[in-house]
Amino acid sequence: MGVSGETEFIFNSFLFLICGMFVMFMAAGFCMLETGMVRSKNAATISLKNIALYSIAGLTFYAIGYNLMYGVDAGGIIGPFMPWGAEDAVLTTGEFEEGSYASGSDWFFQMVFCATTASIVSGTLAERMKLWPFLIFTVVLTALIYPVAGAWEWGGGWLDAKFAFSDFAGSTLVHSVGGWAALMGAIFLGARRGKYGPNGRVNPMMGSNLPLATLGTFVLWLGWFGFNGGSQLALGSAQNAVDISAIFINTNTAAAAGVVTAMVATQVLYKKVDLTMALNGALAGLVSITAEPLTPSIPMAALIGSVGGMLVVFAVPMLDKFKIDDVVGAIPVHLVAGIWGTMAVPLTNHGVMADGGPTFLGQFIGVVAIGAFVCGASAIVWATLKYTVGLRVTPEEEMLGLDHSELGLEAYPEFVNA
Amino acid sequence: MGVSGETEFIFNSFLFLICGMFVMFMAAGFCMLETGMVRSKNAATISLKNIALYSIAGLTFYAIGYNLMYGVDAGGIIGPFMPWGAEDAVLTTGEFEEGSYASGSDWFFQMVFCATTASIVSGTLAERMKLWPFLIFTVVLTALIYPVAGAWEWGGGWLDAKFAFSDFAGSTLVHSVGGWAALMGAIFLGARRGKYGPNGRVNPMMGSNLPLATLGTFVLWLGWFGFNGGSQLALGSAQNAVDISAIFINTNTAAAAGVVTAMVATQVLYKKVDLTMALNGALAGLVSITAEPLTPSIPMAALIGSVGGMLVVFAVPMLDKFKIDDVVGAIPVHLVAGIWGTMAVPLTNHGVMADGGPTFLGQFIGVVAIGAFVCGASAIVWATLKYTVGLRVTPEEEMLGLDHSELGLEAYPEFVNA
Amino acid sequence: MGVSGETEFIFNSFLFLICGMFVMFMAAGFCMLETGMVRSKNAATISLKNIALYSIAGLTFYAIGYNLMYGVDAGGIIGPFMPWGAEDAVLTTGEFEEGSYASGSDWFFQMVFCATTASIVSGTLAERMKLWPFLIFTVVLTALIYPVAGAWEWGGGWLDAKFAFSDFAGSTLVHSVGGWAALMGAIFLGARRGKYGPNGRVNPMMGSNLPLATLGTFVLWLGWFGFNGGSQLALGSAQNAVDISAIFINTNTAAAAGVVTAMVATQVLYKKVDLTMALNGALAGLVSITAEPLTPSIPMAALIGSVGGMLVVFAVPMLDKFKIDDVVGAIPVHLVAGIWGTMAVPLTNHGVMADGGPTFLGQFIGVVAIGAFVCGASAIVWATLKYTVGLRVTPEEEMLGLDHSELGLEAYPEFVNA
Repeated sequence: MGVSGETEFIFNSFLFLICGMFVMFMAAGFCMLETGMVRSKNAATISLKNIALYSIAGLTFYAIGYNLMYGVDAGGIIGPFMPWGAEDAVLTTGEFEEGSYASGSDWFFQMVFCATTASIVSGTLAERMKLWPFLIFTVVLTALIYPVAGAWEWGGGWLDAKFAFSDFAGSTLVHSVGGWAALMGAIFLGARRGKYGPNGRVNPMMGSNLPLATLGTFVLWLGWFGFNGGSQLALGSAQNAVDISAIFINTNTAAAAGVVTAMVATQVLYKKVDLTMALNGALAGLVSITAEPLTPSIPMAALIGSVGGMLVVFAVPMLDKFKIDDVVGAIPVHLVAGIWGTMAVPLTNHGVMADGGPTFLGQFIGVVAIGAFVCGASAIVWATLKYTVGLRVTPEEEMLGLDHSELGLEAYPEFVNA
Repeated sequence: MGVSGETEFIFNSFLFLICGMFVMFMAAGFCMLETGMVRSKNAATISLKNIALYSIAGLTFYAIGYNLMYGVDAGGIIGPFMPWGAEDAVLTTGEFEEGSYASGSDWFFQMVFCATTASIVSGTLAERMKLWPFLIFTVVLTALIYPVAGAWEWGGGWLDAKFAFSDFAGSTLVHSVGGWAALMGAIFLGARRGKYGPNGRVNPMMGSNLPLATLGTFVLWLGWFGFNGGSQLALGSAQNAVDISAIFINTNTAAAAGVVTAMVATQVLYKKVDLTMALNGALAGLVSITAEPLTPSIPMAALIGSVGGMLVVFAVPMLDKFKIDDVVGAIPVHLVAGIWGTMAVPLTNHGVMADGGPTFLGQFIGVVAIGAFVCGASAIVWATLKYTVGLRVTPEEEMLGLDHSELGLEAYPEFVNA
Repeated sequence: MGVSGETEFIFNSFLFLICGMFVMFMAAGFCMLETGMVRSKNAATISLKNIALYSIAGLTFYAIGYNLMYGVDAGGIIGPFMPWGAEDAVLTTGEFEEGSYASGSDWFFQMVFCATTASIVSGTLAERMKLWPFLIFTVVLTALIYPVAGAWEWGGGWLDAKFAFSDFAGSTLVHSVGGWAALMGAIFLGARRGKYGPNGRVNPMMGSNLPLATLGTFVLWLGWFGFNGGSQLALGSAQNAVDISAIFINTNTAAAAGVVTAMVATQVLYKKVDLTMALNGALAGLVSITAEPLTPSIPMAALIGSVGGMLVVFAVPMLDKFKIDDVVGAIPVHLVAGIWGTMAVPLTNHGVMADGGPTFLGQFIGVVAIGAFVCGASAIVWATLKYTVGLRVTPEEEMLGLDHSELGLEAYPEFVNA
């Protein structure tokens, strides 16, 4: 005997809600990671940016983003009132279509994905960017840029329809989108004062609270089970349960391989293991497997995560060569590993239909198209902000710290040595 | 085909257990929030108070509280042995009533609500209150005060029966109860030495670890999905799944609106955004929507949360005017926003029965009755403690910090500047 | 009408996945607990060890451990590819056996248990042990020692078959295994320099961040609901829901009693409440109830947890008498309370079959057999490492801190007083 239609409806909805909670908690993970990686004089500001961007995403994705991304197919999530009323008919008749779920549960799950995209940007631009311009960018990113890019694939748009582009949980649609936006922001914003000296010298600016950054990484890792597992979008059959289990294992394995790879690589290259590289190795492994966490075997998941971890180890100093100052390493983690993960999809996902499934060309087109769009759109917003309200605090404010200039307080008023 | 009786039983029980876990984690959220908001010399003591109060609630709510609150209707949760045996009959016969669940799962969910009430009190009274008297109060609060007040409504008592008082997840029954108890405690205890100077001067005493307070706020926000979502009390039908989804969205939206409102308000009023106000704005939004997270539309949820955030911005300095010293802002957040949320219920919940549902008068009667009872009962306990064992540490101990006097250690022995 | 086979399959698998996520988060809990309990000069290294050991466990338990522990009965989880394909047949036929689940979900749940065992070891040995030798030990522990010991009981081996040894969620198989391995490590490694002075003097070395340790304890407490609740191994019937509810309540009650007991005991013995003892009291209560969280009544669960909390209060100074330096108290918590919990099983679990269920003798045999095996195997590994690559950093490195010598950075570069 199988699963009844109503039982399936409940399972599917509950999967969205529970997994959505864990993805929501990733906002806290990003916050702790970024707060731990900045200097203490900027720790309160980055904390505020993180809770503010999550809040903004929750409002704009309702007001504009979701409709833009999923259009009228979203089951009536349009307009300001009672969007979850779409299933009124089904509740009355008791006739449940296969794969159906409460539309509100889907909305919640999609909203926390949108918020994740915004979380990626804040870390890169920390320690010199003003509060309000960052929040204005967040509004545009969550209301327009992320949803438009997402509509091309998850909204059933041209990338999905014409190129069989495949991105299971968002290596490109979430992580690279955030990464591209962060990259453009870093270019328009410029590096922190003193970060790059003469003759290619890079001055390290150590994070003030590495245990907090470690906690943030663990929280992100935890949340990623919800991120990738919930992207199965259904729990209402045994096959779904089997698939989600595989997704959990592959997600964990890729992250684990990313950690070990980054540790070994930094030990070999620098004769010391670098904790922040190990943390970013975990995240790079997670981003890498996100485009296709279902079809790889476990060893293949380890390989995909391992390559992600290795890419981070090399991408971090490369960015420094170009004097692109990424405070937390979000560009290597989310953009570089996101591209890698997307391109790796055809290695294991051979499709089930006559059209043969995702191809390297299709994936490449998706990566380029999304990248071009997000870079272009972001650049317009960053440039507009730069030449109107300005992006950066003054050099004096940057020296004193943003907590002083933007908030008028200190994150740790009793701890820091004078 | 619908949901079988046994499947429904499992769904309902699992909802209580999973949501209960997230509410349990709110104890950690309160702990981090409060620990981050006190000065470092009191950080270990407030950490201890938080884990102790959660522990005490777990024991007293079993020994006394639950029976007092839910009486014999609780399905036999009485007496010391095997309280979850109530469903023995149903397990034998296999005949499941609609809406049934494992009574132990309900107990767990109710217990973590009781613990939340106690968590609210500790923050207000931090930095000058002795450890053991606080814990004695916690015993009385969790064994008697919270359960008696709760019985009037959730136990099927007179507020529910005669006045159609409505409080979905506890804006009044949890948050205001904690808030009233904290207010009375603050009055009997008095302000921290040096907090209020001559001529109405208020000396800021900055929290020692704002990133930790931010983490605590995120954890509370996460837990609130369990708090409000689990208060649907059932997951065993498609309608429940739809309703819980709406509750999640409204809960998130109210919190988001609270954050944005508090940020804008402090920017306008003080020319700087206040991080702690933004955090309390999130919490005030959450408290505000807790009395009715189901019936509001999303924009209405935003409005309710926004008013909550605004109330906090004005209530914090108002309390200072009365020299009521609330270290973390728990009274504005849990009491003021709790009253607002309770009074806002009739705006959207028009009832489904002939009696017309909740009314402003009925809500007002509930707010006043609960307030009067909790204030009276708390005052008796606070006064008794004050004039017997005493509530406050000595001025010297307060100067040195409670970690020194109460625990004989330091929370951060290596960090604080001499 | 009961639960359909496929619905049961989904419930069982989802229980493993959700509970597994919470157990995974215990890795973060251990990390925060340990990081808070070490001095700041070793905080980054212990953070790294914790994320590394979790990663290693995820890889080795796949490559070797799981097969060793559960053998061919594991449903085909053998060999490197697609281990979760075991249920292909059932998915095709749609014939679900009672109690069936996605084999991948079980693998995930078992893997996080293996990782927990490794987490226990790192804290004891902090502040003087080199990074890589610790990680090599972790490889052997998770690939061989834990799985072999586990196979004797959970793999259906001789302890289970011949002695009716009973260990519901792993007081012995997880916690004591970790505890014995930590004990042997502490003996081979020796105490931190300066910890033990002449004439039996014990120099306190205070943890640098007690709020972080408190957070870690809360996270562990949260995760323990998944740990014990998920060990029911099934959610597919009303009886399972009832049982898991009882497990949640007993787990919480034992922890709460452990906290209160440790607080009262330290107040009586030392005239001050010891925060770290209260935290370890919670954990000892949790470990104590883990061997049998289902059959005790709530008061009995409180008693079991209370004895656990008391044991910790006495075991910590006793270890110091033997100059066994356990930085976080993992041996009292996980080994001593683990033995107590295992021996307490027959007090309440009288079995349901003709053979009469667990006996004190059977439990004792299990404790001794597991202890002897783990001590022997661990000693071989520790000794091999000690006399080849070495276990300890140099005295100079220990003085400067492992963050300096092993990682070349500081955990809190701005906070620590010179």
